[in-house]
Amino acid sequence: MKKLINDPSNIVDELIDGFVYTNKDRVKRIGRNTVVARIDAPIKDKVGIVIGGGAGHEPLFLEYIGKGMADAAAHGQIFAAPSASYGLEAIKAADGGKGVILLYNNYAGDVLNFDMAQDMARDEGIKVETVLIYDDISSATIEHKQDRRGTTATPIIIKIAGSASGSGMEFEELKKLLEKASFNSRSLGVSLSACTLPETGLATFSLEDDKMEFGMGLHGEAGIKKVDIMTADKATVTILDMIMADLPFKGGDEIIALVNGYGSTTRMEMFIVMKKIHEYMGEKNINIYASELGEFCTSQEMAGISITLIKLDEEIKKFYDMAADSPGYIKMARK
Amino acid sequence: MKKLINDPSNIVDELIDGFVYTNKDRVKRIGRNTVVARIDAPIKDKVGIVIGGGAGHEPLFLEYIGKGMADAAAHGQIFAAPSASYGLEAIKAADGGKGVILLYNNYAGDVLNFDMAQDMARDEGIKVETVLIYDDISSATIEHKQDRRGTTATPIIIKIAGSASGSGMEFEELKKLLEKASFNSRSLGVSLSACTLPETGLATFSLEDDKMEFGMGLHGEAGIKKVDIMTADKATVTILDMIMADLPFKGGDEIIALVNGYGSTTRMEMFIVMKKIHEYMGEKNINIYASELGEFCTSQEMAGISITLIKLDEEIKKFYDMAADSPGYIKMARK
Repeated sequence: MKKLINDPSNIVDELIDGFVYTNKDRVKRIGRNTVVARIDAPIKDKVGIVIGGGAGHEPLFLEYIGKGMADAAAHGQIFAAPSASYGLEAIKAADGGKGVILLYNNYAGDVLNFDMAQDMARDEGIKVETVLIYDDISSATIEHKQDRRGTTATPIIIKIAGSASGSGMEFEELKKLLEKASFNSRSLGVSLSACTLPETGLATFSLEDDKMEFGMGLHGEAGIKKVDIMTADKATVTILDMIMADLPFKGGDEIIALVNGYGSTTRMEMFIVMKKIHEYMGEKNINIYASELGEFCTSQEMAGISITLIKLDEEIKKFYDMAADSPGYIKMARK
Repeated sequence: MKKLINDPSNIVDELIDGFVYTNKDRVKRIGRNTVVARIDAPIKDKVGIVIGGGAGHEPLFLEYIGKGMADAAAHGQIFAAPSASYGLEAIKAADGGKGVILLYNNYAGDVLNFDMAQDMARDEGIKVETVLIYDDISSATIEHKQDRRGTTATPIIIKIAGSASGSGMEFEELKKLLEKASFNSRSLGVSLSACTLPETGLATFSLEDDKMEFGMGLHGEAGIKKVDIMTADKATVTILDMIMADLPFKGGDEIIALVNGYGSTTRMEMFIVMKKIHEYMGEKNINIYASELGEFCTSQEMAGISITLIKLDEEIKKFYDMAADSPGYIKMARK
């Protein structure tokens, strides 16, 4: 797979420069490291929200810093965790005196390095706690939730975090809210083709042209079921049946339904999937409060989609409905 | 190429249903036809803005209806012009008593059918005029501007149209403004791989794995130059040199710089291209007033990018800076 790049060893550095050029009125780079922050960070007397992880999933993570979203993001190289020192820089950039919550996807490398960053920040007297996102139901059973990976619920949970912290919510209450939002979020995807690593041009896995694989991870982690290619409707029902059973979601629930494109999937396909989600939920008497559709968390040019369902309550809805203005997620206040 | 679809003959119908489900608080479908409008259309005493063209380029066109954007959109099947009767329906849906401007990309089939729709609407007493978008400098020489195709300047010109009409601008003045914005917009793209038609699974053209082609059209129309794969920086400079000479843009100009992904190109690559645009413009003493980056106008899963430069003046800037809220283009008011 050909890609429009320059020096393969310098991709993330260049992408971050391009990101800052594109959004120069609202973001800043911290030094020459792969750490970015809201231009007005730290916000005094607001709990800071720090996100981060491997690069290569754009708009995740860096495009989700901004008003009503996160304060700073630490990046690693493509599909690789940020170093602890970059995590620490992001924490410092986000700390407005009320402490910082680290909010990121549950992957071993990220946890290792962000935990070190957390310890280093605490040593400097900054209050830091972590909330992990672990929405991918394919990556471990419900009994081993701690082993579940985070995937495409992330932008919505970041949005809840940004709005709640921006509204002045105190540290402990905010942490509880984010733990609830994380617990209430469940995702599952299906892949139709692999992606290639830009540094090497090599595919992360192989998938026959007449097959699709449910539960494939964002970095090519093995899925749970490889099957013959099926229709959009059948794939959607297969995913929804599994997600619904996992929380479980039930009649009368109010949810956000999110369709994420992994990279080369068209919005045309995503809309066809969303149509089926609405029909399915109508039959189950579940109220789709809001629909989100787009490329929120990509895996380079992997083809496929994931579906995320987030169970709502009045508190989560309140913060979801507020305005957000980040490069990767903008919304007007609802109502 | 596998795609997540159901019945290949029913793709556009399903995608529009999915679009309306996704955005049910702000758009509506007109009957069962492939025509959609703002939920509050027609807006009384506002000049209506109607857009449209072939489907398969999402978010173009239908996702650009909304506040500060267009009022209604008529769609054809994949890569095919809407019928005249759908054009007429969109005009009627958008007409709030002050007439309607048809604003769409210059392709023969679209012009033929929208011209018929325009005649039919005039017969019914609706004032209708047309402004064509013809920003693609590869598709004809400057001497034959009338043969130039419209491509990726479209969302920004729709944004200007929506904000100006929403501000109460009168019909003739609005038409002049849009003609100016269209004239001031120049684009050129480079493709790295073909796309496939979802109905047939067949590629629209072929491109060897070590080649890239400048000026390829959105439907696989032949480009102007096929070359060995080059770096992002070199490809960007090649494109910019050609666009700059075409208007021509010159030192002291103020511009919008837009990087569009055609489908499977990552935002990572787009950011690397945007970095080079900023460096290039810095050397030429051209002020990038705003940077736009994303998938604005796709060609299914084609790989590649296009760059659009739009020359600004105070009038265009004023309307560009206003808020917009459509499914495919949202921005907060600037300043």
